[in-house]
Amino acid sequence: MKIIDGGVLAAKGFKAAGIAAGIKDNGNKDMALLFADKPAATAIMTTSNMVQAAPVQWDKAVMIESPYKRAVVVNSGNANACTGETGMRHVEQTAGAAAELLGVSTQEVLVSSTGVIGVVMPIDKILKGVQTLVDELGDDAQHADDAAHGIITTDLTTKSIAVEIELDGKTVHIGGMAKGSGMICPNMATMLSYVTTDAAIEPECLQKLLAKITQDTYNMMSVDGDMSTNDTVVVMASGEAGNKEITLNDVTSQDFAVFSEALYYVNEHLAKSIIRDGEGATKFVEVTVSGAATDKDARILAKAVIKSSLVKTALFGEDANWGRVLSSLGASGVVFDPLKVTLVFFSSAGMITLLNEGVPIAFDEDMAKKVLSEKEISIMVTLKAGEDKATAWGCDLSYDYVKINGDYRS
Amino acid sequence: MKIIDGGVLAAKGFKAAGIAAGIKDNGNKDMALLFADKPAATAIMTTSNMVQAAPVQWDKAVMIESPYKRAVVVNSGNANACTGETGMRHVEQTAGAAAELLGVSTQEVLVSSTGVIGVVMPIDKILKGVQTLVDELGDDAQHADDAAHGIITTDLTTKSIAVEIELDGKTVHIGGMAKGSGMICPNMATMLSYVTTDAAIEPECLQKLLAKITQDTYNMMSVDGDMSTNDTVVVMASGEAGNKEITLNDVTSQDFAVFSEALYYVNEHLAKSIIRDGEGATKFVEVTVSGAATDKDARILAKAVIKSSLVKTALFGEDANWGRVLSSLGASGVVFDPLKVTLVFFSSAGMITLLNEGVPIAFDEDMAKKVLSEKEISIMVTLKAGEDKATAWGCDLSYDYVKINGDYRS
Repeated sequence: MKIIDGGVLAAKGFKAAGIAAGIKDNGNKDMALLFADKPAATAIMTTSNMVQAAPVQWDKAVMIESPYKRAVVVNSGNANACTGETGMRHVEQTAGAAAELLGVSTQEVLVSSTGVIGVVMPIDKILKGVQTLVDELGDDAQHADDAAHGIITTDLTTKSIAVEIELDGKTVHIGGMAKGSGMICPNMATMLSYVTTDAAIEPECLQKLLAKITQDTYNMMSVDGDMSTNDTVVVMASGEAGNKEITLNDVTSQDFAVFSEALYYVNEHLAKSIIRDGEGATKFVEVTVSGAATDKDARILAKAVIKSSLVKTALFGEDANWGRVLSSLGASGVVFDPLKVTLVFFSSAGMITLLNEGVPIAFDEDMAKKVLSEKEISIMVTLKAGEDKATAWGCDLSYDYVKINGDYRS
Repeated sequence: MKIIDGGVLAAKGFKAAGIAAGIKDNGNKDMALLFADKPAATAIMTTSNMVQAAPVQWDKAVMIESPYKRAVVVNSGNANACTGETGMRHVEQTAGAAAELLGVSTQEVLVSSTGVIGVVMPIDKILKGVQTLVDELGDDAQHADDAAHGIITTDLTTKSIAVEIELDGKTVHIGGMAKGSGMICPNMATMLSYVTTDAAIEPECLQKLLAKITQDTYNMMSVDGDMSTNDTVVVMASGEAGNKEITLNDVTSQDFAVFSEALYYVNEHLAKSIIRDGEGATKFVEVTVSGAATDKDARILAKAVIKSSLVKTALFGEDANWGRVLSSLGASGVVFDPLKVTLVFFSSAGMITLLNEGVPIAFDEDMAKKVLSEKEISIMVTLKAGEDKATAWGCDLSYDYVKINGDYRS
């Protein structure tokens, strides 16, 4: 597997555009269009929040009709969530306008929105934006970058990645773009993430693979413990690479393994990029829980640590207040023996053991400070309760998180 | 019911003391002793965190032997949690020293600790402190105030309350003291809370009543969503008021109703005081969810709103970003119909309706700012799913929360 340029347009068979349609007051790009030259095998994961934005409801409905899609229209600056019947009508109008201009059916168009909740969409600007997007479609690096800009909100940077692999003797590409960076604690998928590939793969197989990958990537991260109304990840496969189509019969094949690994890599990269750009984040934190009795226990425990406000503020303050890690594990609802827990903090500056099978270890405070001064911190918890393991990603909790979210609408 | 002075010593039959034993570096008071002249009927609720501090383990063990207790020794500045076998030995030494000096049995002494986790107790200072506490025991207002100071950590103020009622023709007193103010999201009881009464009441009856009251008071509050390793609430009844002992046979009596109401009032007051003094809090927030399908749903939903970092930062910023309330309800795991939800914010400055049965209501931003500028904010959610209702209490999330917890150990 080779990392390449090109982002969401690295794969053959796709075009994109990103523009400023005037939804954001500051004149930044706020719409993007992703277009597949031919119907693409499409998989989707969306938020499990009971309150789902209108575009999420639309996407779920049209995916039931057929898993082959042609386009995704995305806007940032307005989530089109809690907007009632008006919101649903606006999604249909958006998909309808794109479909007409692109010469495809309305049911072949997915729609995503992100931004403030509960505000009616400026539908005239959106529809005018769709027209401009269609006019500006293209397949070069600039178009991929424009699209990546069109989907972000409070993100400080765009998030893109692409890789190249070989399947069935053919060169295959996978690329993607995503946006964060607050209300991040997905429980099906991340905020918004779009991945394209020119691999040929059956939609059912792609959907199963995406569900599994989402579980291990987007669902294992948290900026602030708040699950969004709009979380969506979409993977579209054009088949243009010309490999023999991967189906559910091939899940033990070498090709499937190579493709899975590459698709996992792209999504993990996008998930980690979202955390790195978490609102106000100054540190990237990885928590690994091993020796758990079950996979579920390991996941719950790792996420409990990453979600604790007190762990997060201690990391911001570069304070080795490790008791908070133990307390968050204990509060998770998982049953374990505290007297068997081993806890280690490490970073590129070194490693400190805080607790060894329940016994606190005297550690060098200067060394601890050094370890925690790095931008990337790892917390390793071992339970001695079994064989299962999980990793979660998150960030610290800073003054800037409070600032960004104290006046988000203003 | 009349509110009176005297705090934890308002009830007859108790003495207390509070001193600086040198556990805190800043010279502030850090130990307290509560002493009952005769064995007192005692009820206790402790944290459900899997990681339980040594004193919590001790208290649970000695309560099984007998529900009649004579004393509680409390220290602040060190939680004696995650301290292994050494921690357990230190609790036994502490209880043993107090028992010997007070002329009671070791099993009649409860112990509580609060402060940093994972640091071995300065046991020599503690044992010397126990001696001083016993020497300084007294029953006046100054002693109650000293004890209330002895149990606090990052709290800005002490928390005390006392009331007077009449039972069986006798005057009965209930008083208490508590400490907050971080790692507050109890799931059995609050951080530390001690309530005394001179009512005569059977221990089994007191325990059942305390369990019920804890569910509706301490368990419905959250400063930061982090459940402590040390949460403990203790109620001791001396029987000195001379009323006919209240037993489990009296739960339908007028006396039981009056006593229950007063005990609820004292504990609710202490719980709310903890929230008002939440770390960095600038606002007290009450969330009421009504029209829920079940009592459990109502509790989960109210706590989901109070725990959301994004709701809390919006309240700090006085921003009516109500979509975050909807999103936190939707992320709670409770099933409900978003199109039936009504949402209202109110305070002493007025009321704004944000959502009426799923339809967003245009509101006056100036009025919203006025409503949210107050120090006490209420959020009212109606679901139209049933008859159940619950109220939770919390606070906003401010820069100061991050500051206080970024360098707690330093």
